[in-house]
Amino acid sequence: MRAVVFDEGLKFDNNYPKPIPQEGEALIRVKLAGICNTDYEITKGYMGYKGILGHEFVGIVEEVNGADTSWIEKRVVAEISWGCDDPDCEWCAKKNYRHCPDRHTIGIWKKDGCFADYITLPTNILFEVPDNVPDEQAVFVEPLAAACEITEQLHIEPMQKVLVLGDGKLGLTTALALHAFNLDVLLVGKHQNKLDIASKQGVKTILLDSFTPEKKYDVVVEATGTASGFETSMSLTKPRGVLVLKSTVATGKELNLAPIVIDEITVLGSRCGQFPPALRLLKNKRIDFKPFISGIYSINDAIEAFEVNKQKDTLKVLIKMD
Amino acid sequence: MRAVVFDEGLKFDNNYPKPIPQEGEALIRVKLAGICNTDYEITKGYMGYKGILGHEFVGIVEEVNGADTSWIEKRVVAEISWGCDDPDCEWCAKKNYRHCPDRHTIGIWKKDGCFADYITLPTNILFEVPDNVPDEQAVFVEPLAAACEITEQLHIEPMQKVLVLGDGKLGLTTALALHAFNLDVLLVGKHQNKLDIASKQGVKTILLDSFTPEKKYDVVVEATGTASGFETSMSLTKPRGVLVLKSTVATGKELNLAPIVIDEITVLGSRCGQFPPALRLLKNKRIDFKPFISGIYSINDAIEAFEVNKQKDTLKVLIKMD
Repeated sequence: MRAVVFDEGLKFDNNYPKPIPQEGEALIRVKLAGICNTDYEITKGYMGYKGILGHEFVGIVEEVNGADTSWIEKRVVAEISWGCDDPDCEWCAKKNYRHCPDRHTIGIWKKDGCFADYITLPTNILFEVPDNVPDEQAVFVEPLAAACEITEQLHIEPMQKVLVLGDGKLGLTTALALHAFNLDVLLVGKHQNKLDIASKQGVKTILLDSFTPEKKYDVVVEATGTASGFETSMSLTKPRGVLVLKSTVATGKELNLAPIVIDEITVLGSRCGQFPPALRLLKNKRIDFKPFISGIYSINDAIEAFEVNKQKDTLKVLIKMD
Repeated sequence: MRAVVFDEGLKFDNNYPKPIPQEGEALIRVKLAGICNTDYEITKGYMGYKGILGHEFVGIVEEVNGADTSWIEKRVVAEISWGCDDPDCEWCAKKNYRHCPDRHTIGIWKKDGCFADYITLPTNILFEVPDNVPDEQAVFVEPLAAACEITEQLHIEPMQKVLVLGDGKLGLTTALALHAFNLDVLLVGKHQNKLDIASKQGVKTILLDSFTPEKKYDVVVEATGTASGFETSMSLTKPRGVLVLKSTVATGKELNLAPIVIDEITVLGSRCGQFPPALRLLKNKRIDFKPFISGIYSINDAIEAFEVNKQKDTLKVLIKMD
């Protein structure tokens, strides 16, 4: 089968062995996949991963091995990690597979990814995509779930002020998701064309140049992935407020953490999320991801797609398997 | 009166004007005061403060002006900040004066400190010291309240594992305080003589050299005030655990915050605390601060006391006003 593989370099392989589903697994024909910044970080050495890249996808189940056959022919998405499922594992008991010490993570850790014609996965991490959600929206479920995760970790009260800093994919998705939870969200960014994507869907937005910084926000989401963004976020979080840290990018800069202590700020690390709330938002058409799509490339042109993904103004680049 | 003043340099002033209590204030004769690291940071420029230093003390009320006269002759301690007390101020309404934007903070911000024969303070931040608590214990109420503050901000469950990193004053006080709340505390430090102070009062302790680091602690309190201590603390906090940041010392080092996101750690900034729970611990003799005292100096020798405070093995240096 065709596959996009990282092994020191990034390459397109026309003859990668098609995977065989193990007990409890489904064989899924991938239809559409999305390039994430994490994929790009992996090509720079993140996690030391080697294998097929990709963890955002929608596909069709073609076979199952020793599992519920009703999955066959269903259109599915899959959470990106699964755990040991040992009844004594506190993380697996809560379906928080991403923290299981024996986890596998699609395209990131001990498991081939989805930039390929086929992928095999345990059926217990699959979710059927509602019929009214097209592939071009369903493929966004993983980053959307990561944004919804904030509401699982933190009780944001309806009267509280939320600020999202950064208008890249992460900031836009987070602002749209929190807005879809009926919260009072302000998105601050540097790019009018990106801010427009959120404002057209009802989110309050403002250009950084026009924004008057005040230490008054109950919740600030740092979505710039930069050290200066983190410092700005600290200065906007009111005393006893919460700074949500969404980006794994290293700061590469001296940081003064004293404001965290002086203002008794909580810094909340937040990563991926569970899919049901994100699928519910998509089913109810609360967010439109179409304006995020910067291009759809055939898997045959995946190397080019990765190049496009690096460009400054790109939001989401998708890879199609037909 | 006598006073220890910082104004570019640190000096002992034998002829500082005795303060006059304003409406709602008490005039307090200071008996005993403690040197805190914050005092030392101020002499290096922290907060840009100039005036009488010191915020940890016990004293006797001699006069009041337009306030409850029953305070007179009482032995008192005082919380270090007071606010605007405007009914619309959310911080003053909760008695969290330390976050009121119009606050005064004794010896730190817009208010002379306690290294002097007298201090004037609003009576509403005073607390009477229980008769069975000697001055040499009562003078520790402010740092003890700061340690108790963690239990106000965070619900630590009795089955959770707490680790305190660092065996200076801050780490020792925090470990003893959390132990006094019947929590499962391990104190890790580099100095057997300091660890012994905690272990003799029932706290489990271990030397860093003998300690096997594991990512298994629900709550880790960073009390070393160093960048490497912060990094070690991140590596010991279990996924979804809480890292309590107690020190305002700048890191002066590049920090990689990615572990916060990957393990979805909460970093909780924690500062000073309200006095009643600390006074209750002292009244019930749950902690003995006597082993913390490295020396008691007359205010006439305060400059020497500050020099002693800088020495590596010093814990608490006290200043006596007689």
